[in-house]
Amino acid sequence: MELIDGNHIAAALVAELKAEVATFPGRKPCLALVRVGEDPASVSYVRKKEKTAAEIGVTSRIILPPITITQAELFALIDSLNADDDVDGILVQSPLPKHIEEVATFRRVAPEKDVDGFNTLNLGKVAQEDPTGFVACTPAGIMELLARSGVDLKGQHVVVLGRSLIVGKPIALLALQKKAGANATVTVCHSGTVNLPALTRQADVLIAAIGRAEFVTADMVKPGAVVIDVGINRVPDDTKKTGYRLTGDVHFPTVSPLCAKITPVPGGVGPMTVAMLMKNTVKAFRQRATR
Amino acid sequence: MELIDGNHIAAALVAELKAEVATFPGRKPCLALVRVGEDPASVSYVRKKEKTAAEIGVTSRIILPPITITQAELFALIDSLNADDDVDGILVQSPLPKHIEEVATFRRVAPEKDVDGFNTLNLGKVAQEDPTGFVACTPAGIMELLARSGVDLKGQHVVVLGRSLIVGKPIALLALQKKAGANATVTVCHSGTVNLPALTRQADVLIAAIGRAEFVTADMVKPGAVVIDVGINRVPDDTKKTGYRLTGDVHFPTVSPLCAKITPVPGGVGPMTVAMLMKNTVKAFRQRATR
Repeated sequence: MELIDGNHIAAALVAELKAEVATFPGRKPCLALVRVGEDPASVSYVRKKEKTAAEIGVTSRIILPPITITQAELFALIDSLNADDDVDGILVQSPLPKHIEEVATFRRVAPEKDVDGFNTLNLGKVAQEDPTGFVACTPAGIMELLARSGVDLKGQHVVVLGRSLIVGKPIALLALQKKAGANATVTVCHSGTVNLPALTRQADVLIAAIGRAEFVTADMVKPGAVVIDVGINRVPDDTKKTGYRLTGDVHFPTVSPLCAKITPVPGGVGPMTVAMLMKNTVKAFRQRATR
Repeated sequence: MELIDGNHIAAALVAELKAEVATFPGRKPCLALVRVGEDPASVSYVRKKEKTAAEIGVTSRIILPPITITQAELFALIDSLNADDDVDGILVQSPLPKHIEEVATFRRVAPEKDVDGFNTLNLGKVAQEDPTGFVACTPAGIMELLARSGVDLKGQHVVVLGRSLIVGKPIALLALQKKAGANATVTVCHSGTVNLPALTRQADVLIAAIGRAEFVTADMVKPGAVVIDVGINRVPDDTKKTGYRLTGDVHFPTVSPLCAKITPVPGGVGPMTVAMLMKNTVKAFRQRATR
């Protein structure tokens, strides 16, 4: 069994992006990070993104509207960033407060600056295999992890567990694409799937993104499979100071001995998302520069 | 074995649309049909669409630019239809001449008038389960055929053979949706799939859209399955005046006895596409009227 080390792969990608950005004369790529309110998880995510941007040489512009911002005011803010020629990428950190409609907010971001890949147009471009689009950071990170771990999906049966808009569906569409590294046969399973273990056991590559702690057990995995664990779940644990431990959607102790390769949680898919955000931002910069 | 009669179901849908359009006071829905050049298949398709529109009470506006039209002129024509408040739906008939870029042309149609469902934004809306979008007519027609034949996909394993942008991918996304009638587990297979028969034999509902005459044989189908044959292939046949016969992607004589239900070719999925175009046009009219 080989661990797929997301921290290591993300660090390699960050180093490559840093080298690339260093070659840009003049203005550097700029990422606008919009964080509404003081949600502790959001504060920590935005700080991490700001730090990685600085490491690469991407300018970040942090905008911190109060939690009382109205939908109309948030739209106006996004519109002004859309119109600002010095801004290449825009990320509106989720979760947003309850009075703000998330989907409408993500759609408001101009497609050519939508480095989070949540705009409807960019999702359509994933389906259309249009390389000018932006792929959401988690599925893009999974493809990058696989490619850099020497896993070619061609002819492989990829089983995706979960059909969410930000992971399950885009990773299924990416694995299906006709380009090198992809070309998989793809099955999407979910909470309503009948006889789930019989399907997951067919997976050459199993992508678990169902959001249930340690849901995937050894009987659901074919020996020799590659397992990508997208879940990040908090499980109560009295032995920890915090009172919980982080675990994925896969029961790692029993599944990992069966696998050819597996991502740990934490340290697998997670670290890739920020790196892919930066990759998207640099891509947005390049595409805007060559318009 | 029960035949799913596409002609009958399409006629029922057309009658319903006619009744609905009759209730609209004032201006009727208007569909602009753009046909470039004199391709015989296109002439016949556009004529059929015009006829069905007339039957329903949808106004059609036929625009016949010469085959020498430039890309820029075609874009300008589409722009003028996009801006025309009296036009609810726009269809640019394919195939287009070689000097015209098809994808760019379909993308030029305003999303809210894109009754063919080929605009990137509408494809993204299928993935996002956004009911304001327009679904391409063939996959939409398949869902309608299934619903009106009493086939509920919930908990069923749908295997889609083919990953095209206009059939395979959207039908996979539709079958996965969380709404009533859908909620299937979905596998997408294609020309690069290893051990295809082992996968297609798992299908409770098999959707064949691979574009190869009589490709699906009895050994690839589970007894009791529902089979939807999307293929329309010409096979040389000396006994016919035309020198060919039409056949689907399924070898009907050997597969049909195994099935619970199956669509014939012709007379299955084919007749649904024009009916769904009209359904989309009426929907575009309604949505534009209530903006």
